[in-house]
Amino acid sequence: KIHFPPFPIISNLKDKNSKNNMRKLIHCVKVGVALVLVSLLYLLDPLYKQVGDNAMWAIMTVIVIFEFSAGATLGKGLNRGMGTILGGGLGCSAAAVAQEIGGVGNAIIVGTLVFMFGAVATYVRLVPSIKKRYDYGVMIFLLTFNLVVVSGIRAEKIMELARDRLLTIAMGFAVCISVSFIVLPQWSSDELHDSMASKFEDLASIIEGCLKEYFEFDSEKDNEQPSGTFSACKAVLNSKSKDESLANFAKWEPWHGRFGFSYPWDRYLKTGEVLRELAAIILSLKGCLQSSRQPLTSVRQSIKEPCEEVGSSLVWTLRELGESIMKMRKCQPGSQIVSKLKTMRVELHLVISRSKIAPLENGDELAIASFLFLF
Amino acid sequence: KIHFPPFPIISNLKDKNSKNNMRKLIHCVKVGVALVLVSLLYLLDPLYKQVGDNAMWAIMTVIVIFEFSAGATLGKGLNRGMGTILGGGLGCSAAAVAQEIGGVGNAIIVGTLVFMFGAVATYVRLVPSIKKRYDYGVMIFLLTFNLVVVSGIRAEKIMELARDRLLTIAMGFAVCISVSFIVLPQWSSDELHDSMASKFEDLASIIEGCLKEYFEFDSEKDNEQPSGTFSACKAVLNSKSKDESLANFAKWEPWHGRFGFSYPWDRYLKTGEVLRELAAIILSLKGCLQSSRQPLTSVRQSIKEPCEEVGSSLVWTLRELGESIMKMRKCQPGSQIVSKLKTMRVELHLVISRSKIAPLENGDELAIASFLFLF
Repeated sequence: KIHFPPFPIISNLKDKNSKNNMRKLIHCVKVGVALVLVSLLYLLDPLYKQVGDNAMWAIMTVIVIFEFSAGATLGKGLNRGMGTILGGGLGCSAAAVAQEIGGVGNAIIVGTLVFMFGAVATYVRLVPSIKKRYDYGVMIFLLTFNLVVVSGIRAEKIMELARDRLLTIAMGFAVCISVSFIVLPQWSSDELHDSMASKFEDLASIIEGCLKEYFEFDSEKDNEQPSGTFSACKAVLNSKSKDESLANFAKWEPWHGRFGFSYPWDRYLKTGEVLRELAAIILSLKGCLQSSRQPLTSVRQSIKEPCEEVGSSLVWTLRELGESIMKMRKCQPGSQIVSKLKTMRVELHLVISRSKIAPLENGDELAIASFLFLF
Repeated sequence: KIHFPPFPIISNLKDKNSKNNMRKLIHCVKVGVALVLVSLLYLLDPLYKQVGDNAMWAIMTVIVIFEFSAGATLGKGLNRGMGTILGGGLGCSAAAVAQEIGGVGNAIIVGTLVFMFGAVATYVRLVPSIKKRYDYGVMIFLLTFNLVVVSGIRAEKIMELARDRLLTIAMGFAVCISVSFIVLPQWSSDELHDSMASKFEDLASIIEGCLKEYFEFDSEKDNEQPSGTFSACKAVLNSKSKDESLANFAKWEPWHGRFGFSYPWDRYLKTGEVLRELAAIILSLKGCLQSSRQPLTSVRQSIKEPCEEVGSSLVWTLRELGESIMKMRKCQPGSQIVSKLKTMRVELHLVISRSKIAPLENGDELAIASFLFLF
């Protein structure tokens, strides 16, 4: 009943890798194209006459903003735009006020403003909720404010300067967004979605692997595989920060493909949390598998069948859930799965009460608990 | 024997919080000071005559480079410096070659170079090991290269331009480094060190809390605390990315305080890994504690004493290890601790064989295993 095919998984891995490489290459080419497009501001005479040396800001914008996924690019671009506008506006007003006063007072006021805004903006950047989504925007705000307010002392026409720079930044932004969104867009939302579904699959394979190893009596002393199995488990366990940043980018992404506006990305985070708990439980099975004091073969033999049955329906449930997320279809009615898991649970308790050695059940029971929790 | 004092922990937490807030405030003030210092390039006439509008780059450097910890600031600054020098140098040579050819060929060569460098640098940025430490440097390299090579078409004296900008960037860097390192430096290495030691303490308190809850028969149905207990456990579990970035910054930090050159930061990461495994095991105890099917009180009573004994020596060991890391002293001879843990293990097996219900032992045994591994 339990069946552990290594080849499909490896080829799957290869597929994943080559798909990943393909995505990376596409991204690189896109960055190159965006840079050439924006360099045209310098390279073509008629364009250069319009924008002049401010074209520099467009190039800078493209290099700084262009991120791997469309959502990250849009988020950074909007942050940069808002930061520039706000910082520029405030900077202009502050510079105008300072100029009214004139003389040494001017320099003192500017110095004080620079200090105050610098300290406050830095504090704001340290607030976790702002740091998560608007860190870059606040930094750009501070940068623009400072540049405008201090150059206000020197330049006469800061309004024009600010307007021209904003215009070129907008050009850079437009180039980025068009290249990022129109040609083969890389969506963070897709990546989050797929990674969530594949986590279910990964955990299912790990459980299969554990069961197989535990009940394999022929070649008992090949303790080399588990580390490989558990590294996948640890990858799931350590996926929190990656998930969070993907969800963060996905929230910037507009309606596309299968995802509508205000798609519930937060639920992905919650599901990820539950999966990480399950991964923690599986990881603690490692101790049972690698322990030097294994129960006798006969004892293990006696619990083999029910455990395998329970394990395989657990694996089946995980795969079913993962597939239903992947294909965005309703999975088998929840009540059916839950009742199946409940039967399993009762069965498991029979096993435990019949035999003393109960290393796997503990984990399985917990897994069931977290599954019941999922529904 | 088991003793769970809530007040010291809360006040400890408050201390931690206020210390954290203090550090944040210091950082904010330092950023403000650095910004004012660098704005003097604009504000004071003699300085402005020397650097001119290039002072802009000094301001930009301070805002972009100044990070919370000294190590992060130094790392970013060095990245920026190296990126600027390399990019500027390559850009100048490329621009010179392109100018030799002249005419339309010039623009075509520049366009091709922009595309190639853009694509290759972007690919390099995606390589994990480079992304971790040199991402910013490669980005600045690309930015400088592009700016120099395209403005080479327009400006006559790019060498001078490049030199002046580099000079102002160096000024900004110098201001950052002096402010960051000289006045109340915030070391990432200290933070990593302290957080590692406090993780031992946290896990010890959690184990204590679990034992207390499990063997508390008076008010059995107050299932509200565990979530609090386990959130600390999850914090340890999810600490990987934070640890890694701290270790990354710590590596940039020069000799200071108790840490010499080439201090073994990698070992902190390994210890963190083991602690995360332990946290995973503790987290899976949650299922036992919250399970609706608790063993009878009498059964629990029978295992109470040995379990508490084992638990308290486990807690003691964790605290001892944490404290020895904190104070950087040799902890009690490893062999002594190990032999103590081994005795515990034997005791525990006696308990298991005497009673059927064995929910905690599984975790404890694993904990011992990971401890043995630690030595």
